[in-house]
Formats: sequence, C-alpha cells, structure tokens
Amino acid sequence: MANHCLEPNQNQDLAAERRLCPFNTLEMAAKLYGGEQFVQARKRIQNYVESVPELKECSSDFSFLTRLETLERVARNTVVLRKHAPKICNMDEPYEYNYLRSLLCGDDGYPYGLHFSMVIPMLRGNCSEEQANIWIPKALNGEFIGTYAQTEMAHGTNLKKLETTATYDPQTREFVLNSPTISSAKWIPGNLGKSANFIVVMAQLYTLGKCYGPHAFMVQIRDPTTHMPMPGVEVGDIGPKIGINSNDNGYLRLHNIRVPRLNMLMGHSKVSLEGKFSAPVHSKLAYTSMMYVRSMMVGLMGLGLAQAATIATRYGCVRRQGEILEGQGEVKILDYQTHQYRILPQIARAYAFIFAGHYSRDLYFRVMEDIKKKNTSLMADLHALNSGLKSVVSWEASQGVEQCRLGCGGHGYTCASALPQIYGLVVGGCTYEGENLVMLLQLARYLMKLAPQMVAGRPTSKVSEIAEYLFDKKSNKSSLNKSQNREQQWQSVQDGFEHVARRLTLQAYHKLTSFQKKGYPQEVARSKVGLDLSRASKAHSRTFLTRNFINTVKKEDSWAIKEVLSDLLHLYLHYEMQDCRADLFEDGYLSHEQAEISRDELNKALEAVRKNAVNLMDSFDFQDRELNSQLGRKDGQVYENLWKWAQNSEINKHQVLPFHHETIGKLMKEQQLQSKL
Amino acid sequence: MANHCLEPNQNQDLAAERRLCPFNTLEMAAKLYGGEQFVQARKRIQNYVESVPELKECSSDFSFLTRLETLERVARNTVVLRKHAPKICNMDEPYEYNYLRSLLCGDDGYPYGLHFSMVIPMLRGNCSEEQANIWIPKALNGEFIGTYAQTEMAHGTNLKKLETTATYDPQTREFVLNSPTISSAKWIPGNLGKSANFIVVMAQLYTLGKCYGPHAFMVQIRDPTTHMPMPGVEVGDIGPKIGINSNDNGYLRLHNIRVPRLNMLMGHSKVSLEGKFSAPVHSKLAYTSMMYVRSMMVGLMGLGLAQAATIATRYGCVRRQGEILEGQGEVKILDYQTHQYRILPQIARAYAFIFAGHYSRDLYFRVMEDIKKKNTSLMADLHALNSGLKSVVSWEASQGVEQCRLGCGGHGYTCASALPQIYGLVVGGCTYEGENLVMLLQLARYLMKLAPQMVAGRPTSKVSEIAEYLFDKKSNKSSLNKSQNREQQWQSVQDGFEHVARRLTLQAYHKLTSFQKKGYPQEVARSKVGLDLSRASKAHSRTFLTRNFINTVKKEDSWAIKEVLSDLLHLYLHYEMQDCRADLFEDGYLSHEQAEISRDELNKALEAVRKNAVNLMDSFDFQDRELNSQLGRKDGQVYENLWKWAQNSEINKHQVLPFHHETIGKLMKEQQLQSKL
Repeated sequence: MANHCLEPNQNQDLAAERRLCPFNTLEMAAKLYGGEQFVQARKRIQNYVESVPELKECSSDFSFLTRLETLERVARNTVVLRKHAPKICNMDEPYEYNYLRSLLCGDDGYPYGLHFSMVIPMLRGNCSEEQANIWIPKALNGEFIGTYAQTEMAHGTNLKKLETTATYDPQTREFVLNSPTISSAKWIPGNLGKSANFIVVMAQLYTLGKCYGPHAFMVQIRDPTTHMPMPGVEVGDIGPKIGINSNDNGYLRLHNIRVPRLNMLMGHSKVSLEGKFSAPVHSKLAYTSMMYVRSMMVGLMGLGLAQAATIATRYGCVRRQGEILEGQGEVKILDYQTHQYRILPQIARAYAFIFAGHYSRDLYFRVMEDIKKKNTSLMADLHALNSGLKSVVSWEASQGVEQCRLGCGGHGYTCASALPQIYGLVVGGCTYEGENLVMLLQLARYLMKLAPQMVAGRPTSKVSEIAEYLFDKKSNKSSLNKSQNREQQWQSVQDGFEHVARRLTLQAYHKLTSFQKKGYPQEVARSKVGLDLSRASKAHSRTFLTRNFINTVKKEDSWAIKEVLSDLLHLYLHYEMQDCRADLFEDGYLSHEQAEISRDELNKALEAVRKNAVNLMDSFDFQDRELNSQLGRKDGQVYENLWKWAQNSEINKHQVLPFHHETIGKLMKEQQLQSKL
Repeated sequence: MANHCLEPNQNQDLAAERRLCPFNTLEMAAKLYGGEQFVQARKRIQNYVESVPELKECSSDFSFLTRLETLERVARNTVVLRKHAPKICNMDEPYEYNYLRSLLCGDDGYPYGLHFSMVIPMLRGNCSEEQANIWIPKALNGEFIGTYAQTEMAHGTNLKKLETTATYDPQTREFVLNSPTISSAKWIPGNLGKSANFIVVMAQLYTLGKCYGPHAFMVQIRDPTTHMPMPGVEVGDIGPKIGINSNDNGYLRLHNIRVPRLNMLMGHSKVSLEGKFSAPVHSKLAYTSMMYVRSMMVGLMGLGLAQAATIATRYGCVRRQGEILEGQGEVKILDYQTHQYRILPQIARAYAFIFAGHYSRDLYFRVMEDIKKKNTSLMADLHALNSGLKSVVSWEASQGVEQCRLGCGGHGYTCASALPQIYGLVVGGCTYEGENLVMLLQLARYLMKLAPQMVAGRPTSKVSEIAEYLFDKKSNKSSLNKSQNREQQWQSVQDGFEHVARRLTLQAYHKLTSFQKKGYPQEVARSKVGLDLSRASKAHSRTFLTRNFINTVKKEDSWAIKEVLSDLLHLYLHYEMQDCRADLFEDGYLSHEQAEISRDELNKALEAVRKNAVNLMDSFDFQDRELNSQLGRKDGQVYENLWKWAQNSEINKHQVLPFHHETIGKLMKEQQLQSKL
C-alpha cells in the first residue's frame, strides 16, 4: 500500500499524511481515469514532457502575461504539442492527446480546442459520406482550424430565432450566408476571434422561398495563405472574460458570403441541386455533437473540482492556524470541523462526478452505436440525463471550487493559488452548452412525459434504468435507523432521494395540469411552474449521482479501495441528505431523530475521510505543471514558492513604478510643500 | 411619481418599465443613501465630473489594460481626484469624497485606498494626543501614503502568532522591527506593493525581555524623495488576483529596521523611555479600526450586490429569449419565473443589506462616542453584530452577484458585463477583514455567553435590542396562516426566524456543555461543535437582517415608497423562509401547509416585485460610469455597445496576430503539404 506522491524533501505534514496511506493511490487512479492503461499513459506522457527540454519549457501559468502574450504563448506551445503528440501519444486515444495538451497548453483554451472537441464530432455526426471523406481527414491532420458558430449576440438557447440566414440560390447552386443585424453576429464561439479559418455555422436554411430552420454549413472565414478575413467577413475577439482567457472567443458577421451547395452538412437534412429540401430521420440528429460535449462535461467538471480540492486539501495540511489548546502549537486547518465541512464534501462530489462522467460517456457511445443502426430509442434518455447532469454538476462543481478557494483564505484570492483560474473555467460550464436553468427545464419535459404514467401506476414503454425508480412503490417514511449496517443505510438514504424526486415530479405535474385545467395553454402553464419543474429535475439528477456512486462502490473488488471509497460515499450521501433535508421533512418522510442520525453519520464520515483526504486527492495524480498552484504543490513547499512566484509580477520589474514621480509622488510632494507654507 | 432614469432614446422595453413607476426613484434614493443630502451631493458631483473634461476623461474600465497600465491609469486618475475633490466635495463628508473617488478611480483600489479607510481610523483610534497632532494632519493632507500591515504570509486570523517583532532597545530608545522568516513576511495589505511609503505595522512587542503581544507601529518603508525602499526593506507586489487588480496588494519584509520609541502608537498600551510596558483600559481598543471597516462593509457589500442586480435587472428587460406562445414573440427573460427567482431576491437582499449597513454604521459611531466617555459596554454587541453580518452579508452578496452574472448568460461571462469584476470585489469581502467561518465562530462566542442565561430564563445584565429576542418565550408552532394581513404575516415569519435562532443557539450550547461534561477542555469542545456554532450564528444574523428591514418599512411614512418596499420585504422574508425551512420543519415548528402558504406568497411577491424591478434598481442612481457595464447601461442599448466595446480588445489591434505565421499558420501549411505528398 502506498501513496506514489511520497518523496523526499517534502513538507513533513504532508509526508505524514501520505505515509499512512492504507491503499495504493495508483490503483485508485485507475478507477478515476477509467482503467490502468490511462494511468500508464499519463506516466509515459509526463516522463516525456519532463525529459524533452522543448516540452519541459512550455508553461501554462499565464498569470503574468497580457492576453496577447497569453495567446502567443499558447500558440507556441501548440506548435510543440502538435509536433510531439504523434511521437508519444496513441493518436487514436483522444485521452492521451488531450492530456499532453493540458500539460503543455493548460485547460483554458488553445487554437485547436473547438476544432477537436466540437467541429470534428460535428462533421462526423452530420456529414454525408462524400463530405466526410473530404473534410474529416483534413480536419484530423489540422490542415485548417475550425470552430462551431451557433450562438448569436442576441440569441442563445432559442435556436429557432437565430437570425443568420443561408439562402439557397439554385442558379449558382450556392448558399448565401448573411448576418443581417448586429444582434445576429455570432458571438462567443471559442477560437473564432483569431485562430479559426473555417467554421461550421448554424444558419436558418431558406430554399425555394421557405425556411427550414437552423442547419449547419461549412464556411471558410480566413484566407489560407494570408489568414486575413475573407471578403465580407467581419471577425474578431470579444475581449477578456472571467476565465478561459487563453481562448480567443470571437464574434463574426457574414455579409452575403457564397459557399457551394455541398458546404451544407448533408448527413441528415439535404437540399437537392434544384433546391428541394428533404428532412432527416430524427430531428435531433444534428445536435449529437452538443450531446457529445455535454457527456464529456460531467467528468471534466469533476476534474476541475478535483484540482481545486487537491489544492485546498494539500494546503489545508500545510497551513497551521490557531491553537485549540494553548501551548500545543497551531493546528492544521484541515483539522477544524468547520473547514472539513467546507472541503471534504468537495472531494466526495469530485469522485461522484467523475464516476457519473464514466457512465455518461459510455451511454453516449452506446447511443451513437445505436444511431448507426437507425435506433434512436435511447436518445431521449441520454439527452435528459445529460441536461440534468450538465446543470447540477457544473453548478455544484463551481460552488465546490469556490469553497476550496475561500478555504485557502487570502492566498486563495490570488492567482498564485490557481483557484481563480479554475473557478473561471469551471463556472463557465454553468453557461456554455446550454444555460443551466434551461437545461433543468429540458430534463423536466422528460419527467413530465413520465409523470402521467407514474400516476397510472406503470410505464407505457420500457423505461431506462435511470428513471425506473419513478415507478417504485415504497414507504412514505424513511427506514433510516441506528441499527443498520452501512449498505442498509445507503439504501435508506437512496430511498429518500428517490422519494423526494418522485414527490417533486408529481407535485410539478399536478400543478401543471391544474393550470391547464384552468384553461392555460400548455406552454404558459409550464412557465408558471418553472420553479417546481426545476426542483424536480434537480432531485432526479441527484438520484442518479448517488445511485451511480453506490453502484460503483458495491462493484469494487479491491478491499482497500472499497474501504476508503465507502467512507467517501458515506460522506457524500449524508452531505446530500443534509442538503435536501427540507424536502425530506416537508411531507414527514424524515423525522427529527433521523436527521440527527444523518448529522452524526456525517460528522463521523468527516473524521474518516479526513484521514485519507490527501491520499484521495493524490490519487488524481495531478502534476504541479497541471495545477500551476503554489498552494497545491505536491511537495507542500508553499511559502517559499509563493514568495518566488510573486517576484515574477510584472509590477515588480520596477522598484519605483515609471509613472510614480509624475503622479502620486508629485502629489505627495506638493502637499508637503503646501503644509510647510 | 417618476423614474429619474426615463430619458429619450432609450431601449423601449426599459422605457416602458420606467413609465409605470409608481414612486419617486430619487425619494427612494434618499432612503438608500441615508438622506436627501447624499442624493443631492451625488448629483452635484456627477454633474461636475461630466462637465469638466479632465474628469470626464477619467475611465475606470480597466478591462483592456495590463496590470501595470491599470496602476498607471488609476494613479493618473488619483491626481485628478485629489486636485478636484476639495473643489466639489465637502471634505468633512467622507461619503462625498468616496463617491468622487469611485467615479474616477473605480472601487478596485487606488493608491490612497487603505490610507483613508484603515490608516487614518487606526491613527485616530490608537495615537496618543501628541502622535495624533503630528501624524493625522499630514495623513489627511495626503503628504504620505500609508497602509495597514497586519496579515503575514503564514499568519492571518490568529494574531497571537504573528512573527514580526518590535523589540525595544532602551539604549537608543528605539524599536527594532524584524521579519525573521519568509513566513513572517507581511502579505496582502492593499497599496503596500508600490504606493505606500509608510505603514502601520502590527508586530509582537518585546520589551525588557518580555513579549506583550501584537501592537501597532508607524514605519517609513520608502524614501520620501526617491520613493526607493528604505535600507532593510524588501517590498513588492503579490501578483494578480481574482479581483481588486487596480490595487497593488503587497508583501514586505523588515530586516532590523529601527524606529523611534514614539513610532509605537501609544493611545492605549504604552512603553516608557525605560521600556516599561503599561496596558490599556480595554484590550480590544486597538482593533477599533477593524470594527470601523467591518461596519462599513455591510453597506458596501450591499452596494456591490445592488450594482450587479441593476445590471441583471436592466438586461433582463432588454434581453428577449424564447417564445412561450408561438408567434407571440420572444419574452423578456425577466418574465420567466425561474429567472425572477434568480434575480429578484438579490434586489431584496441588496436593500436589506443597505438598511442593515445604516444600522451597523450608526452603532459604530455610537460605540466610538461611548469609548470617548470610557464606556465600552456596547463594544461586545458591536463586535458580535459585525462579525455575523460581515460573514453572512459578504457571502450572500457575493452569491447574489454570481446569480446575477449567471443570469446574464454568456454575456455575463465577459468583462463587458462588469459582473466578473464586481464578483471579484464582493467575494473578497468573504476573506478580508476576518475569514467568514472565523467570524461566525466569533459571534458564536457571544451567543454562548448568553446561552446559559437563556437556560436560566433571563439575562444577567441588560441585553442589546439585537439579542433581546433570545429571551422571548413564544409558541413552538408557527402562527403563519392565510387569513393574516401582511404585517401579521411578517411577524409570524420573523417569529420563525427567531425560533430557529433560539433553538440552534441552545442546541449548540447543549452539545458544547455535553462535551465539556465528558471532560473535554472548553476549546476542544468548542472545536467539536464548530458546525453547530456557525449555524446558530447564521440564524442569529438573519433575525437581525429581517427585523431591521421590517422596522425600516414600518417606519416609512411615504405611502408610495412604503408600498413598493412592502412588496420587497415580503419577497425577502419568504425567500429567507424557504432558505431555512429545513430548520423550521425539523422540530415541527412549521407545517407542510404553512410552507405551501409561504411558497405561494413568495410567488406572488415575485410577480409584485417584477413590476418595479427596474424602478427599484434605478433608485440606486448608478451612473454608467460607475457600472462600466455594457449590459447594465441606463439606456438599454446593449448590443450596439457590446459590439463597440469588443472592438477595443487589445487582440483586435491586429487582423492577424503578429506571431500567427510562425506558429499555427506554419503548422497548418506543413500539414497541408504533407497530406498532398
């Protein structure tokens, strides 16, 4: 049993935590990354980076750079990345390439970011065979840089109202793409500002005088030789953001740009030479690349939270503050109950999200396989699951990052901790790929379809394992009690979450139908119960996250791993129970005494998880290069390195700032003179 | 009745909201700023700024500047500020100067920031008369720039463990100040990096071989002529942060710097020529400047939240998205219930915090008057109130700002919204001036002193009006019912909050004493019930915020103002009730039916407050210059100005980035060549 981060010359407090590790952290890493091969790949890639000077010199700490310098740094690192990736990564494993990318360029965007994460999946999902043969190999080679341009300045979620048009001209067999107004400008797409020379753009398709709604078109926006914007293209950077600043998120207006007919992606909808439109098998098929991103987001958000929790956990064992008993020396801050309550649940949530991410990713690939066989039966389930998870996980992950940042006090406030940057990245997940409130309402549509079947007592068709519980009939009182063993207790807690989700789903449904009975149209009724719907969606998402964690632990066959994961799961379940105890109390499902039991269990779980907090986070195997955090350093040498880091501040290039004497220096002298008069 | 923001050439949706204003927004402004004279002063100062070109040109939108450029901009604006302030501000009214400062330099720090907010109050509260006569006039004139250096790299909250020493040398009648280690470096003080040439530094006082704990010393750290660091002084900037980046928060080490004996602030503790120490009347007197800052923080946090809510509210009426009924056109996003639930409670909380800020500020001045009369009886109450409010208000305000930011979707993510900057500023309040969890535990000490008196049934000495309710005997069931009028309902809700605070206070106390009975020392027992203590403190703070808002509305004599504030209060109370319903349910105090009543009232209150949301926020009279937000513009011309703003991005100075062709441009060409081979 060993913690692979235990090395000589570490902060002694951290080393002490590691020495007691009762499990193998690399074995745990294999659980987190979904297989031992990933852990080995990480090691291979890490070693390569540290052994080749050109890679070793790539830094993704952009704290002291201007945005232009940041973009330059990341462009230069990208060259190194693209050159070396085929030498060390299995390029058929996106994980390997992405890991090398994160080591060299960080996670806040690099020129090919959207190209690989959105454009290639989009092309794969939406091209005809002919189109795929032309574009996908070039795209994979990186012969162009693409991005996906959907959102407009005044139009986000409601795609129906996108203003950009693509009008078919049967005379020339071309589409004419146009942004008629400022509000129709494409706005925010990553890498659009300066990097991308091609876009997959969503535009309202008009042909033979009729609009067929938004479709995707491939458009060249910059000259392949000069990289200057093509005639009729206005394109640029949208400016600095709360995060993701190594990405040139951009704006774009197209002024009657003409592209050949075959630049419309014709894997699903088609427009013939004469302009005849034909519709796809499944109207949502065009959105599979969005589903891909949302499926990946769950795990990515979990990783972001894990990075923050690693930093806060390590720092929490290095930082000592306050004596509990006078003369006994200051205490590690992670030994305070209040601090544990702040940080340790973030560890549990990070693990829960990572495990949920595995499920969500696997389901995505299952659905894609099905689609190839013209079977779209699981699409609604995938869409519903990901809508809920995307919303709940991005929110809880970003809140968790903030708790980690706040838990590092003043040092968490500075970029030396890297926590501001991680927060900026993770909280972006609440907004991009579908605003979180809207996502919850999308899941609610799925729940509202099931609700009348719940009322009837059974489903009208097969229900996926995620929603099966909605049809269970269980007690209206929680079975939680002190004499249960752990697994029994987990079941009781899970029953409670499911009870709440059933109750809130039915409650929303009854309110909805009562508005409809009063004569309100369905959509108006829906808007009047938006809060009830979103509560139901959150509760439903929770049942999945907790069930999936329980199943993961139950299936675990390594005793040592199972032991530590059980503690973590225990913390997770009781923490979530505290979080929703109002809903558990409201209909008398949970009693005061049961809530006390849960609080006691939570306190015990905090103590148990505390013992392995560092080991649990070390299992993520984050390198200092990935975290870029002086607080979260593997060796725990925090203070010396905070000092060194600050010396690099651009402000410190001058002992006296160049404008001092003509500004506030002069001011002080004038005041001194005046008062001497 | 009128909204003073209604002007020609506005976005029509915003104008429509304003035209229906049922109250006078400037009358409301007088409530918010604590008197009509403040509203008039604002107008006078605004007009001056807009009419004098030198001031008009000062911009505090630093979005496109590097940090060095930002510091330069703010230094130059400071010169303008200091020159013009005496011409237009009544310099005896700190409000007026601060308002001009915020118009010219923004709220993220300027060279004299800590000088005026911390150093001068510190000198006023801690100098002997002789010292005051020397330093205070110079300080008021701005002849030097001071800052307050307390926190060290490894020592924040626990002042007892500060490492910096000040050792009295009776031979030379000097103190020798020293930072023995890197971890003892003063770290984070605002303006310390480059601006300040004097500091008030907290150091462990040693004299005649004995340590007397932390005391304050005045130390010159930069040469008055060259502004170079004095010999033995290492000083610099700590680097970029999540916010407040126009402030050069700094680090400092002192290497055996000698200062005259009278550089120790001797208003309370004293060291004689021979080195004899004499103690102060009240041991906490040295911390009154910290109390001042905390007292001010409550209102300031409220203002930060108000700025964010103004932006989100205006944008929420300009932005249209989604059709509820097809063909009826897209809906203002503020008309969605889920969005209202996100934004409108922030309006209510901003008002609640502003009103609480008035109380807190008044109490501070009352206590300072008392101290002059050697009466320190209210100090504990002030300290307790401010500890709780500082924590609860900074947390809820920062969470509220984030909700406003998230509510603006993708546009909220960019600095064009100003919301990232406001968040960075407000969330800092959770950490600076006492970390929030620690603050709650400080309030809990006060509550735990009262708890045994609660058990005994009556207080042993007079209790302030803030804590009186702890001794009330009221029903164990909520009286909330449908037949109540509003004021009765408010009382029922307030009773509920007080019930919870009493219950949680006693619960924490009983747990604490039960640990003590088991033999744990008091401090150990306390650390074992940290979570219970902090819950009690939060509940207690809520009772103050809600009671104070109720009292404010009850006292209001303008009918139109009272009407709209009543709606807002109603929303506030039921929102808070939802927030703590778990605690209300837990002991059966609140029934399911009563919770439903509260939810219905909340929904009704959302509808009522929605009608005046814009008018309520316009009442803050924020100028576009203050908000620096393209989304929150008074005229609602959001999209055109987003476009214009983005053009200023430094990235957009180049159509093709200077390094493009030698980096990713080259990469793409190489790939193209290769694939043609």
